[in-house]
Amino acid sequence: MHAISFIQDLAVIMLVAGVVTVVFHRLKQPVVLGYIVAGFIIGPHTPPFGLIHDEQTIKTLAELGVIFLMFCLGLEFSLRKLFKVGATAFIAAFLEITLMIWIGYEIGQFFGWNTMDSLFLGAILAISSTTIIVKALNDLKMKNQRFAQLIFGVLIVEDILGIGIIALLSGIAVSGSVSSGEVFSTVGKLSLFMVVALVVGILVVPRLLAYVAKFESNEMLLVTVLGLCFGFCLLVVKLEYSMVLGAFLIGAIMAESRQLAKIEHLVEPIRDMFSAIFFVAIGLMIDPKILLDYAWPIAVITVAVVMGKMISCGLGAFIAGNDGKTSLRVGMGLSQIGEFSFIIAALGMTLQVTSDFLYPVAVAVSAITTLLTPYLIRAADPLSHTLGAVVPERMARVFCMYGEWLRSIQPQGEGALLAAMVRKILLQVGINLALVIAIFFTGAFFAERIGVYFSDWVSDVGQQKAWIWGASLLLSLPFLIAAYRKLKALSMLLAELSVKPEMAGRHTARVRRVIAEVIPLLSLMVIFLLIVLLSSSMLPTREWLVLIVIVAAMVAAVLWRWFIRVHTRMQVALLETLGNHPEP
Amino acid sequence: MHAISFIQDLAVIMLVAGVVTVVFHRLKQPVVLGYIVAGFIIGPHTPPFGLIHDEQTIKTLAELGVIFLMFCLGLEFSLRKLFKVGATAFIAAFLEITLMIWIGYEIGQFFGWNTMDSLFLGAILAISSTTIIVKALNDLKMKNQRFAQLIFGVLIVEDILGIGIIALLSGIAVSGSVSSGEVFSTVGKLSLFMVVALVVGILVVPRLLAYVAKFESNEMLLVTVLGLCFGFCLLVVKLEYSMVLGAFLIGAIMAESRQLAKIEHLVEPIRDMFSAIFFVAIGLMIDPKILLDYAWPIAVITVAVVMGKMISCGLGAFIAGNDGKTSLRVGMGLSQIGEFSFIIAALGMTLQVTSDFLYPVAVAVSAITTLLTPYLIRAADPLSHTLGAVVPERMARVFCMYGEWLRSIQPQGEGALLAAMVRKILLQVGINLALVIAIFFTGAFFAERIGVYFSDWVSDVGQQKAWIWGASLLLSLPFLIAAYRKLKALSMLLAELSVKPEMAGRHTARVRRVIAEVIPLLSLMVIFLLIVLLSSSMLPTREWLVLIVIVAAMVAAVLWRWFIRVHTRMQVALLETLGNHPEP
Repeated sequence: MHAISFIQDLAVIMLVAGVVTVVFHRLKQPVVLGYIVAGFIIGPHTPPFGLIHDEQTIKTLAELGVIFLMFCLGLEFSLRKLFKVGATAFIAAFLEITLMIWIGYEIGQFFGWNTMDSLFLGAILAISSTTIIVKALNDLKMKNQRFAQLIFGVLIVEDILGIGIIALLSGIAVSGSVSSGEVFSTVGKLSLFMVVALVVGILVVPRLLAYVAKFESNEMLLVTVLGLCFGFCLLVVKLEYSMVLGAFLIGAIMAESRQLAKIEHLVEPIRDMFSAIFFVAIGLMIDPKILLDYAWPIAVITVAVVMGKMISCGLGAFIAGNDGKTSLRVGMGLSQIGEFSFIIAALGMTLQVTSDFLYPVAVAVSAITTLLTPYLIRAADPLSHTLGAVVPERMARVFCMYGEWLRSIQPQGEGALLAAMVRKILLQVGINLALVIAIFFTGAFFAERIGVYFSDWVSDVGQQKAWIWGASLLLSLPFLIAAYRKLKALSMLLAELSVKPEMAGRHTARVRRVIAEVIPLLSLMVIFLLIVLLSSSMLPTREWLVLIVIVAAMVAAVLWRWFIRVHTRMQVALLETLGNHPEP
Repeated sequence: MHAISFIQDLAVIMLVAGVVTVVFHRLKQPVVLGYIVAGFIIGPHTPPFGLIHDEQTIKTLAELGVIFLMFCLGLEFSLRKLFKVGATAFIAAFLEITLMIWIGYEIGQFFGWNTMDSLFLGAILAISSTTIIVKALNDLKMKNQRFAQLIFGVLIVEDILGIGIIALLSGIAVSGSVSSGEVFSTVGKLSLFMVVALVVGILVVPRLLAYVAKFESNEMLLVTVLGLCFGFCLLVVKLEYSMVLGAFLIGAIMAESRQLAKIEHLVEPIRDMFSAIFFVAIGLMIDPKILLDYAWPIAVITVAVVMGKMISCGLGAFIAGNDGKTSLRVGMGLSQIGEFSFIIAALGMTLQVTSDFLYPVAVAVSAITTLLTPYLIRAADPLSHTLGAVVPERMARVFCMYGEWLRSIQPQGEGALLAAMVRKILLQVGINLALVIAIFFTGAFFAERIGVYFSDWVSDVGQQKAWIWGASLLLSLPFLIAAYRKLKALSMLLAELSVKPEMAGRHTARVRRVIAEVIPLLSLMVIFLLIVLLSSSMLPTREWLVLIVIVAAMVAAVLWRWFIRVHTRMQVALLETLGNHPEP
């Protein structure tokens, strides 16, 4: 009977994991390491013998573990938190990820590994482990200190960049080459997809969940949440992105729901069950022989992770204006790799582009750096004292002056307010344009597929294209109008600031008006050209195009107010959801 | 990729289940029915087409659903509740189950089905559905009325009898025949196993859980609970009982833990997820053609379920001394079949002893009776009024007199106290003897297996047996001594009561002492003979036997007080655990 061997596998996993985690907890080590060791013990490479019968099913369940891990990461992510994260997080995360990918790649090349292995090694080293850091800071009771808050900020930015790396790696692995054009196109498409998914998701999903939550049945809410989670993962897979991305995004969307606390509550036990299976499955794959064979690379990579992250994150924090002590603490806190690295290593294996040794090496490095983390955090203060004593006074003064200079150039008062306004307008324009581009992409996507059904009504291919293109333009109108209005407001603002009466004299008002009218029109034309380029596959003939644009312009003129109202309503709904605080 | 089709299956199941359950909730129908309909919709027998790729994996997960369903049933069961359940529950449940098995069997025979199908049909009809009843009483806001409490009592007794039925059916299905001797031996072994598992489990498991709970990590507690649950299921399967029994028993054991509330909390989402898959998987198997072909049997069985349960449970409640109105309400509340029936039907399919049509028929009958349940509960009062008007006055008076007579014969005051004492002593003797028998069974079990390893030290087979038998006797001594002491107390009590000074005159004291000494010695000899019989496979030669018994008697005499102390400590620990109220 298949089911019994399956239950036996589960029993062995849970029993051994239970015992080992209790032992690890008593030794004050993270539970995650306990799982991996438990997997190692029951795995096929260690005596007494392989205790798992049906490794395939366990691996399938481990995939569920990844989904639930990323889903819960998404639930904890929340856009609100991302908006609040300061410059430190962005600078440190960018520095860390670029430096670590480069270091990892160079190490791989140094050991003579192939390009793909080196590239994946770089990605594996790029992202620190939220689980391990939270655990370590909890144990050290440092969770509420300033540097801990900075670290959490870096982790949030890392999550979103990590998701990007996974999407990029999938693309590169499939095409087999790394061209900068491709990277740009992948990043562009990915950002577009994420923006559209977030906007549409946040408009739809929290409302749906609120409706189901009204029935006050945990069971129904859970089934709905699971359905949306798996369903969205499936959609993302169909769009040829990684399932991991889908799980994270739908989690981030649900994080804006008022039922967030309840959802976390319901999903946590399920995540714990499947993530235990995931980490045990990682342990299953460790072959001690590989670890011995690769002892030297493991040692080098471990040192590179600790030093590289310490320097890049520390430097990033310092550049963003933190003092040396805090920067060092941030850097040393982030000096490890964890679950994200496993997911990236697993991606390489699933896509069959990396060698067999990479996964065990990543696990070994993660285990060692995890064990080091609490000691590194505790060593940060003594080290900063030592450094303070060692560094020559003149250099220390330079550091000090940098901090002061940085504070002096920060926009303050009216300037800061203005910068915030410009940022906000540009963000809104960006989101609206992303939606427009997404509409045209979807149109192009369907144009290829529905042509067959369509041909019953409209036989001419040119006419078909015209209809689809026209419909896309019509759907885009509210967003185009909104973008135009935002751009107009922006250009009025800029005209007000740049054209001072002292300079333009009596022409001031006229020059300002010209600028305020010309900039948005110019940008709209650029946008239009962009759309034409992007939708080139379904572009109708020139006559049709002109006709459609004229019709669209007429529709826009007639329904101007209505379009604005529809758009405003959507925007209000979106902001309402984002501004809602979840129920406790 | 295998994982993606798996995620797709899960997505389809959860999405369709989510939508259908919302619709069913709006129609005020139970969620369970919604799942089955969802499964029916996405199943292979209905248009548009089969949406499930990997039915085997879904079925394996559905097995997990059964385990979690029964585990949670066990968690809600609790021995404390069973002890508090009154005579009504026992009488009604016994009457219901015997009558329904008989009716089901006869219906099967009437339609010309084979013996196994008929027998399984009987078992399928025997047990009512806790889920449906709780839901219906909740909806009708009648949960706290007296008849509802009686119904919950019946359901608790049904659970334990249902577990027995499953064990019996497995035995019968394997051997292929129904002999009363076999039934007795199966029931005996099953009761023995359950008593021993409960005693040992309640001594060990709650202490273990309390230890793990000290670490205050939900994750570790969950992994431990899952490990114990799957591990115990595995043990039970190795002993050739059903996994369902194991899940229920370990649930009942954990119900005595102080962490009960937390455990329920953690396991509930996991149960909801997998039970949804289980019920959807049931729907997957429904073939509308079978339902049409078997419309006539389905109608007959539905009527039989409603009428049979109404009469048997109602009569049972009435015999136990409830008034007519309450009895009718109890009977009509229990008139449906549900999850237990699915489990029994699935058992028949897994063991490949029942025909293909039995499962869909059971599902159809369950669906119809589930839909009827709320109407039946509401119809109970009007019906009892109508019956009251129709029944001739003389018959009503007979009913009334029966109730009065029943109350008059109930032991009261000293008599009731005495009866309770005798019952308690017999229960304790029974538990101790069960443990002794279990020790000898375990000895016999291992005697066959460890003989090989053992032969290095002791070459003679007779001597081997003597050692194992002797060790078993030594281990049993504390329980034998306890049983002897309880029996002595019982016989003293009986001697006091039966030998009155008016009859025995000046011999009173002596006769009493003789009785008080003779009865326990006689019963111990009977027990000894029983053990010798049960352990016949590993019984040593007569010389060895005499030697061992003499040694054991000497050990008992020397360590008498120590044995009593050990036993008392265990008993106290057990009662403490049972008396502990779980943390809120």
